[in-house]
Amino acid sequence: MPALPAELAGQVGAALREDIGAGDVTAALVPATQRVRGRVITREAAVLCGTAWVTETYRQLDPAVRLSWHAADGDAVVAAQVLFGIEGPARAVLTGERTALNFLQLLSAVATAARAFTDAIAGTSCQILDTRKTLPGLRTAQKYAVRCGGAGNHRLGLFDRVLIKENHIAAAGSITQAIHAARALSPAIAVEIEVESLPELTEALGAGPDIVMLDEFSHADMRAAVLLRDERAPGVKLEASGSVTLASVRAVAETGVDYISVGALTKHVRAVDLSMRLEFGAHRS
Amino acid sequence: MPALPAELAGQVGAALREDIGAGDVTAALVPATQRVRGRVITREAAVLCGTAWVTETYRQLDPAVRLSWHAADGDAVVAAQVLFGIEGPARAVLTGERTALNFLQLLSAVATAARAFTDAIAGTSCQILDTRKTLPGLRTAQKYAVRCGGAGNHRLGLFDRVLIKENHIAAAGSITQAIHAARALSPAIAVEIEVESLPELTEALGAGPDIVMLDEFSHADMRAAVLLRDERAPGVKLEASGSVTLASVRAVAETGVDYISVGALTKHVRAVDLSMRLEFGAHRS
Amino acid sequence: MPALPAELAGQVGAALREDIGAGDVTAALVPATQRVRGRVITREAAVLCGTAWVTETYRQLDPAVRLSWHAADGDAVVAAQVLFGIEGPARAVLTGERTALNFLQLLSAVATAARAFTDAIAGTSCQILDTRKTLPGLRTAQKYAVRCGGAGNHRLGLFDRVLIKENHIAAAGSITQAIHAARALSPAIAVEIEVESLPELTEALGAGPDIVMLDEFSHADMRAAVLLRDERAPGVKLEASGSVTLASVRAVAETGVDYISVGALTKHVRAVDLSMRLEFGAHRS
Amino acid sequence: MPALPAELAGQVGAALREDIGAGDVTAALVPATQRVRGRVITREAAVLCGTAWVTETYRQLDPAVRLSWHAADGDAVVAAQVLFGIEGPARAVLTGERTALNFLQLLSAVATAARAFTDAIAGTSCQILDTRKTLPGLRTAQKYAVRCGGAGNHRLGLFDRVLIKENHIAAAGSITQAIHAARALSPAIAVEIEVESLPELTEALGAGPDIVMLDEFSHADMRAAVLLRDERAPGVKLEASGSVTLASVRAVAETGVDYISVGALTKHVRAVDLSMRLEFGAHRS
Amino acid sequence: MPALPAELAGQVGAALREDIGAGDVTAALVPATQRVRGRVITREAAVLCGTAWVTETYRQLDPAVRLSWHAADGDAVVAAQVLFGIEGPARAVLTGERTALNFLQLLSAVATAARAFTDAIAGTSCQILDTRKTLPGLRTAQKYAVRCGGAGNHRLGLFDRVLIKENHIAAAGSITQAIHAARALSPAIAVEIEVESLPELTEALGAGPDIVMLDEFSHADMRAAVLLRDERAPGVKLEASGSVTLASVRAVAETGVDYISVGALTKHVRAVDLSMRLEFGAHRS
Amino acid sequence: MPALPAELAGQVGAALREDIGAGDVTAALVPATQRVRGRVITREAAVLCGTAWVTETYRQLDPAVRLSWHAADGDAVVAAQVLFGIEGPARAVLTGERTALNFLQLLSAVATAARAFTDAIAGTSCQILDTRKTLPGLRTAQKYAVRCGGAGNHRLGLFDRVLIKENHIAAAGSITQAIHAARALSPAIAVEIEVESLPELTEALGAGPDIVMLDEFSHADMRAAVLLRDERAPGVKLEASGSVTLASVRAVAETGVDYISVGALTKHVRAVDLSMRLEFGAHRS
Repeated sequence: MPALPAELAGQVGAALREDIGAGDVTAALVPATQRVRGRVITREAAVLCGTAWVTETYRQLDPAVRLSWHAADGDAVVAAQVLFGIEGPARAVLTGERTALNFLQLLSAVATAARAFTDAIAGTSCQILDTRKTLPGLRTAQKYAVRCGGAGNHRLGLFDRVLIKENHIAAAGSITQAIHAARALSPAIAVEIEVESLPELTEALGAGPDIVMLDEFSHADMRAAVLLRDERAPGVKLEASGSVTLASVRAVAETGVDYISVGALTKHVRAVDLSMRLEFGAHRS
Repeated sequence: MPALPAELAGQVGAALREDIGAGDVTAALVPATQRVRGRVITREAAVLCGTAWVTETYRQLDPAVRLSWHAADGDAVVAAQVLFGIEGPARAVLTGERTALNFLQLLSAVATAARAFTDAIAGTSCQILDTRKTLPGLRTAQKYAVRCGGAGNHRLGLFDRVLIKENHIAAAGSITQAIHAARALSPAIAVEIEVESLPELTEALGAGPDIVMLDEFSHADMRAAVLLRDERAPGVKLEASGSVTLASVRAVAETGVDYISVGALTKHVRAVDLSMRLEFGAHRS
Repeated sequence: MPALPAELAGQVGAALREDIGAGDVTAALVPATQRVRGRVITREAAVLCGTAWVTETYRQLDPAVRLSWHAADGDAVVAAQVLFGIEGPARAVLTGERTALNFLQLLSAVATAARAFTDAIAGTSCQILDTRKTLPGLRTAQKYAVRCGGAGNHRLGLFDRVLIKENHIAAAGSITQAIHAARALSPAIAVEIEVESLPELTEALGAGPDIVMLDEFSHADMRAAVLLRDERAPGVKLEASGSVTLASVRAVAETGVDYISVGALTKHVRAVDLSMRLEFGAHRS
Repeated sequence: MPALPAELAGQVGAALREDIGAGDVTAALVPATQRVRGRVITREAAVLCGTAWVTETYRQLDPAVRLSWHAADGDAVVAAQVLFGIEGPARAVLTGERTALNFLQLLSAVATAARAFTDAIAGTSCQILDTRKTLPGLRTAQKYAVRCGGAGNHRLGLFDRVLIKENHIAAAGSITQAIHAARALSPAIAVEIEVESLPELTEALGAGPDIVMLDEFSHADMRAAVLLRDERAPGVKLEASGSVTLASVRAVAETGVDYISVGALTKHVRAVDLSMRLEFGAHRS
Repeated sequence: MPALPAELAGQVGAALREDIGAGDVTAALVPATQRVRGRVITREAAVLCGTAWVTETYRQLDPAVRLSWHAADGDAVVAAQVLFGIEGPARAVLTGERTALNFLQLLSAVATAARAFTDAIAGTSCQILDTRKTLPGLRTAQKYAVRCGGAGNHRLGLFDRVLIKENHIAAAGSITQAIHAARALSPAIAVEIEVESLPELTEALGAGPDIVMLDEFSHADMRAAVLLRDERAPGVKLEASGSVTLASVRAVAETGVDYISVGALTKHVRAVDLSMRLEFGAHRS
Repeated sequence: MPALPAELAGQVGAALREDIGAGDVTAALVPATQRVRGRVITREAAVLCGTAWVTETYRQLDPAVRLSWHAADGDAVVAAQVLFGIEGPARAVLTGERTALNFLQLLSAVATAARAFTDAIAGTSCQILDTRKTLPGLRTAQKYAVRCGGAGNHRLGLFDRVLIKENHIAAAGSITQAIHAARALSPAIAVEIEVESLPELTEALGAGPDIVMLDEFSHADMRAAVLLRDERAPGVKLEASGSVTLASVRAVAETGVDYISVGALTKHVRAVDLSMRLEFGAHRS
């Protein structure tokens, strides 16, 4: 299991506050001593992700709710499969249901998408990366889901990698000057530069970046770029970017690029269809 | 324009913090005095939503950035249309770009989906509603987008409406007892109950709820439900729920139900494709 | 017991931080191993409310403090009655005393006032409601207390009900136009309108609101309003508002209105007089 | 004007969030360009307090709202007096009205109570102090209001003064030992001790506290306490505590004690009756 | 042990968030079931401080981590001494190491400095105090460490003592007027005034402050100040301030002043050198 | 100027709240209309850092305070040099003085230390880096100061680089396995490994890390390490770590290592000695 983000508890707390607000007026209909037992199933195949968010939801609501997980983050699950069992005070189980499932259906969606792209390029040496096109406030959660789906994380934010684009190059004067300026300003941080043509790539390789992003290159140009890189600067990584779909991703990977970044992993979401089914038990004596 | 949520500034602040963190190491390459001018276009047709989030993003980053909006929340925009112009210090414009667009592409996606469902039932007296299946931490923003798309909001959270489901009925003893208990507990709040058959509906109508949710009813049963309601309790509203798609929504609306709630409006997201294009100007003297 | 608000833990945390700050310099005089046992009594009759806030206070301070409650939220208690027993590390018990009692004396005061108004109209079909005239930051706690006292909650805030007043009517053009605009803007939300005379009521009833607020009506006019409503729009609720006191509330209820809203429930507070009495035990070995 | 607390902006933000939540659904009925002008009057005599909270409310909501104050914190105002004029966008004025008035009616209530007690002892050398019996989360605001009413603040919290009570004396072994321990632990902080009899006072005076609190002393014993103090430890201050009312406070002050602490100043609230009256203007071009 | 500040949990949470962010990518290399046992030693002599911050760090990360403390806050420890043992899940132990040690090395540094100054004046009746020259956001933690080192706290902030300086005197008109104004404005709060010469001291003593700060007085002038005080206002405390070092502090204390305030205690930090040593155990079955 | 961290406003807000609390009781002595003008000087040579924190302090307190900076972050300043002028309402200037200077004296201290180490290795191709040994809650501010001093940032936290140490190697089985595992888990993130001997370095170089940290190597072994790296894996960077002082740093740099990480930059602080000098002007009319 990849590392969990520190924001997890805060994300869960915010979600509970926005859903519960002044109090769950429906759960108040259930006797405070009523207990319940149930399970959550998926109605469709998916890659599971978000178990820690579900656990945290019930930990914050009522530690007396017990969960028993039947699958782990990153596991492929099939339609009708039980994901977890749940048991405890009925009010807390009901009050937390939507918040818990909202996290699970979202993060499993992201992991499922990441797995689809990763599977599509299986056997190549290429890797799928995410982008900064994420849902506001949920970036670290989505990046965790990407890792659970077997893909990797591009930079987390503006702070952990220099990514030089057209506007920065214009400001610096040239590709070479931009890379040198970045190295001087941030000596121990990875420097990536975006190029739009093979001549730009040639200049970039000469200036020693860690990674070059090939922006909207044709597949032929990507192959040429890989040859150029192998010859001139074998340590530099190449990243393909722009309009890559599940249909086209394998062809891109086979050009020999090291990374393919895919905005669709985190900016689009097709929530996984989940369902909680409960049986009411006797009252707690 | 519908009312803006109070969480707006907090949502923007959180998004900026997660993206900028220890600082934008790339923007630091641009001279502090450099100015820039540009515009944001949409690459596809959409219903615009999120202008206040974009404005707040730049207000928090640097009030010297000026925006000029060419369209308003709720407006239908077409591919290549300019959404807003932007002008100001280059560093701030670049640093805020992704956060601003992440809000705009998400909220426009929600408004666009809401408009598609609303348009599909045009001419009927039925209304589309959202659900609590939302992205954690972004509910009030998504509910605002739903309103911009012309649909309505179902309850905001667990606090502003009683929604009695199967488990609550079991706990209360019967449909009638559950509704009476809800009225007693929450005298001035709307009470909705979910039923799964016409006999359950008949019992529910006799107990005086404000709304009855018809869970996975066939279209024929929905029509029967409308007749029953008209006869027995004309003031009660009927809401269709469950597996309604853009293809089926009009047929559902034509059964005569008052509301159709659609989880897909807020749990799935197909981000609108936006692009910021900049021209660097002279330095600020 | 009504539903607890999600803000509870945050309200307690803020109260503890404002009271403890840099540290309880007096409790530091007591040996860290000293234990204590005690009880909290009320010095006057009241309706108890706030037990969950007291529990949360000690849970945040030191989970080793044990509370045993002798009464529950909503219970009528009499002078000198023991409300709860307390046992645990002396420092934590002493440090939390004032914060715990500040919540309990405030929320019991609100519940007590709500019960007094509710009792005064016993036997009528009318119900007492609160208002938005609350103590800043404590609204959801006060609204919970109102429910514990047997009264109901008017809207929680500006977000969960349309309440059209004179100024909105002026902006919309007429009572009818205002109600129609509200329905269009907020299709699934309750719409209430304030009227100042019987002719205004007549117009309002024709436009189909959920509730009409009768602002400062005489008792005679209230009775006339009830008749008018019964005749023209029997599904619409009537709410009396303005200057209702404990002395006048029964007469108002007997006019046949459905609700009476009372700002005094939450804007005035007469804290219940409570006292914690402790006996120091042996040191913890 | 006394010093404003740092929590002011946070208190206002929390109040606005709890009131506005997902958005003001009624203000949305008013055209966005509509402007309004009005004034807030008091319906009863009071000491004004809370102007900075009102200003901050509108500053956070919309800086285009302009306020013109006709009275300042600490001023005595009479029934029907105009407190401030207001002018600006109608939506923002309406949305902020309740939050602004909730602060003003609460803090003016506290200042009014403080002034009543202060006036009652005019001409004596005694001073009225507040206590830690405050509304949770609003302590610093209430303590500011107390100062505006002309009374003084007892300790702000558990951190800024040692206040030794019965339980601490028991833990320390004796009054003398408790005071010595406090001095050793907190060398530069004021030390106060509560005593319940004249013999206890005698022992306390010998140990050198800064202040002695006379708990529920008779007026005769207070006078004896003052004589004892003058003779044995003239630098020590005496504070009367317990069940002091507006009726009895002057008699207490005339015993010669230095301070009288009054829990009622901040634990009870009788909100001042305020009203905002608006006139709608032309639209903003 | 002195009283712990209420901000402790918040300080730890902030530190964990800034260190862990999107997740500990290195700890993810260790199997989730791996357990570890170890101990933390100091590599140099120090006064220990910060045990509660370490405990809270692991409580927030993973309550399954167990700590066994071999020394307490305020204890003098020697090079190579074991401070605490640690045992638990290897990932959590590793992830929390740096945050825990950052608090412990900082707070022990402050306590060590405080003890050095305190020891230097042992046997005199003078006391060392800290100042408001602290690390932003860490003041209450540092003030706690000062107390653990045996020194006292000067005011916590701008709120708990009046400290009249040159600029305030100028604004008030004279030393006497400034002290009288402070008494009137803040009747129950300590009033301190800074003077720069013996004539100023003479005027100050006549106006009845609680403390006089002697700013940059020579040792001879301090002795004269003490005599003056003993003669004219024996209840007033004298505080020496300005450029006092470990070398000069005893001579200052021997002048007879009551307090010496030392900015260096909290504005300079020489972190104590600590080390965590671990042994990996078998996996948790 | 390097990029500013997003936490800046939050750090300033927290510092103001801890200093001002319930209000500045001394500034309240100054008339609200009094204006003041002044300047801040440094009493010793330093590298300036923290101007944005000072600006933000006064922006939050009172935007009417005007600052005019005479030097910028990263500038070397000399004793008695004026850093900035200040002008505005006297109360706000006085209230913010300590918070503003606390940031400036701390961050300038860090930048000054970074500059000293950087200057000591001038002319070599080596670079000084900081560590995660920082003041809790202030890491991003300190890392900014390190950049202003001309040194670079090592990882920001546990999230932006894999740093494999002895315990992780033991868990993974071998150096080679640990590096391979890290690459698989975090495909697009830098991987660094710590080695304690030349044979360990040899194994590490064969497994393809981005950086190798040489832990407590002798200078001779560092030179051997550089030769080994040049021969076997020229693209891998070498970082010297452990007990490097200002006296020894040049000798370390001359061994040919690429980076030297220095905990002392951020864990020790010798605050720069600053002073604000004010002149009171006429009242604001």
